[in-house]
Amino acid sequence: MISFYPGPSQVYPQVAQYLQDAFDSGILSVNHRSGAAMELVRETYQLLHEKLDIPADYAIAFVSSATECWEIIAQSLTTRQSLHAYNGAFGQKWAEYTQKLGLNVVHQPFGLNEVLSLTTEAETICLTQNETSNGTQVTNSTLRKIREAVPNALLAVDATSSMAGVAFDWTAADVWFASVQKCFGLPAGMGLLVYGPRAVERARTINERNHYNSLLFIDENVRKFQTHYTPNVLNIYLLKRVLEQVPPIQTVAAALQQRAQSLATFFEKETSWQLLVANAAVRSDTVLAITGTIPQIEQIKQAAKARQITLGNGYGDWKETTFRIANFPAISNTDFTTLRAFLTEA
Amino acid sequence: MISFYPGPSQVYPQVAQYLQDAFDSGILSVNHRSGAAMELVRETYQLLHEKLDIPADYAIAFVSSATECWEIIAQSLTTRQSLHAYNGAFGQKWAEYTQKLGLNVVHQPFGLNEVLSLTTEAETICLTQNETSNGTQVTNSTLRKIREAVPNALLAVDATSSMAGVAFDWTAADVWFASVQKCFGLPAGMGLLVYGPRAVERARTINERNHYNSLLFIDENVRKFQTHYTPNVLNIYLLKRVLEQVPPIQTVAAALQQRAQSLATFFEKETSWQLLVANAAVRSDTVLAITGTIPQIEQIKQAAKARQITLGNGYGDWKETTFRIANFPAISNTDFTTLRAFLTEA
Repeated sequence: MISFYPGPSQVYPQVAQYLQDAFDSGILSVNHRSGAAMELVRETYQLLHEKLDIPADYAIAFVSSATECWEIIAQSLTTRQSLHAYNGAFGQKWAEYTQKLGLNVVHQPFGLNEVLSLTTEAETICLTQNETSNGTQVTNSTLRKIREAVPNALLAVDATSSMAGVAFDWTAADVWFASVQKCFGLPAGMGLLVYGPRAVERARTINERNHYNSLLFIDENVRKFQTHYTPNVLNIYLLKRVLEQVPPIQTVAAALQQRAQSLATFFEKETSWQLLVANAAVRSDTVLAITGTIPQIEQIKQAAKARQITLGNGYGDWKETTFRIANFPAISNTDFTTLRAFLTEA
Repeated sequence: MISFYPGPSQVYPQVAQYLQDAFDSGILSVNHRSGAAMELVRETYQLLHEKLDIPADYAIAFVSSATECWEIIAQSLTTRQSLHAYNGAFGQKWAEYTQKLGLNVVHQPFGLNEVLSLTTEAETICLTQNETSNGTQVTNSTLRKIREAVPNALLAVDATSSMAGVAFDWTAADVWFASVQKCFGLPAGMGLLVYGPRAVERARTINERNHYNSLLFIDENVRKFQTHYTPNVLNIYLLKRVLEQVPPIQTVAAALQQRAQSLATFFEKETSWQLLVANAAVRSDTVLAITGTIPQIEQIKQAAKARQITLGNGYGDWKETTFRIANFPAISNTDFTTLRAFLTEA
């Protein structure tokens, strides 16, 4: 089975060997406060900084999921007002979750083909860099313009399905988060929170220390290469091994971008399918959404399944009228050749 | 290296094969809302019910850690008052955490060798069945007496280092939680929350729906064999495989209890070491704490290390004056023979 599901998604084939190595190394049985565990965490941080080009003054924490990051941002980095700009289901869920936690949430929906621009300041501004539900993205240059337009806001960015696939302009925002089951090509069960000095400063000012996942408590552990709860040591180990294997993010991102463009051209020129996002300037590099009638979508997913190919279901408003294709680094070009051949014949 | 660390602790040797099988089965790449993932969750629930003898009306949820369970109990099951009876570091941490979350916390410390008894009602009563920091336990009959003495309280029980090692009288409490890196013999990174009908009723009355880990939201997902966040699918798979392999809990518990008693006798009769807990009636079956002077403890840990044996460090108040030994099911009798030989010679 080849899976193009945008998460949990296809893992790197090398993960098979890494799982075996993890067991053989004994790391699965070590205490998470031990020197061996701390060294693993230190090395993984270092590789993340190197391979993803994360600035030295941005810290990294291992969390249970991207969803937990919504909670951390609302609890530890915001006291009153959170502005959420979104055009899809995940951005909207984040806004609703923050509202439930008692903050004053300003909803700023925008169009599927619209280039986001923001001029309203807020204590915290929450953006979805890559909206997994519809295959749109907010580019680095758009993020940088927003940063300049609202310089006093803390910028938090959901990069769940793009981190490790897109080369970010990290300093354009203060907090970034992702899940390892997307562009990292790893089994589900862990999230990453990347946060800069302005986020730490904000957390210190607010001084929220009531939760086990309070950012200050997380940060104190991070500085010691420890974690705020018993972590998924196996996934940290797998992450380290995958990072050792992958090229620098600029190389990965360029290849993915090229593959995304080539796929878009393929759909436009060689099939009768339509891309959900017409404006190439806001189209995601890592998740493609293809639109059709309900019967067409149903039929193609069934036909794909019969050929051992899993297409991603649509999501939210586009649940029945789209299918989605993950363009993640762990999926090989050969798999995409198989997909194209299938779509050409189907 | 043989590890007697009480968590993360030695994993079952079969986990090596299960990791490989997990990869080969393709489960690592399936979407967590798919039929395949739901079937895995369903089968794992069924095995947990069967092998651990969990009543049919008690539900099971996969969470990120036992620490997260403290939060869920405070947020979703308590509105005002939480009574915490504890004699060690983990019970105390739980009390402090609940207090930080804004509840009125009644602290009821008790002695290391004391049989716990409770007569004060509270909205929620929080007990540590197995206190990993000092190797004490609250037995089934004590729990049952507490249940009868305070029939209106919701009883929540930390069973982090005993679930899957001790045969619980489940209906003596309403909520039980544990981590898989202890008696389940699995890699760290997942917790289990087992909750009964009274807990569900309480959650419905309170109707707390503000958090992604609100119990009502968790429960709605559990009933559909789904999860409230992208779960650690690999660990669920490993849990399923380990459960298939282990005997029923009565058999496991009887063997562990016998091994614990035999170890206690060994320490008392064949070594000059002292057991931290003098009263056998409250001594844990799954974690043994051995006491000595600071230099003695330091020396034995070093000597063990040189023989490829990891003894657990002391914890909290007993950090420097004890070492701990996990008596978990995944640790073989052969390993204990090696340990005894070492301790006899050392």
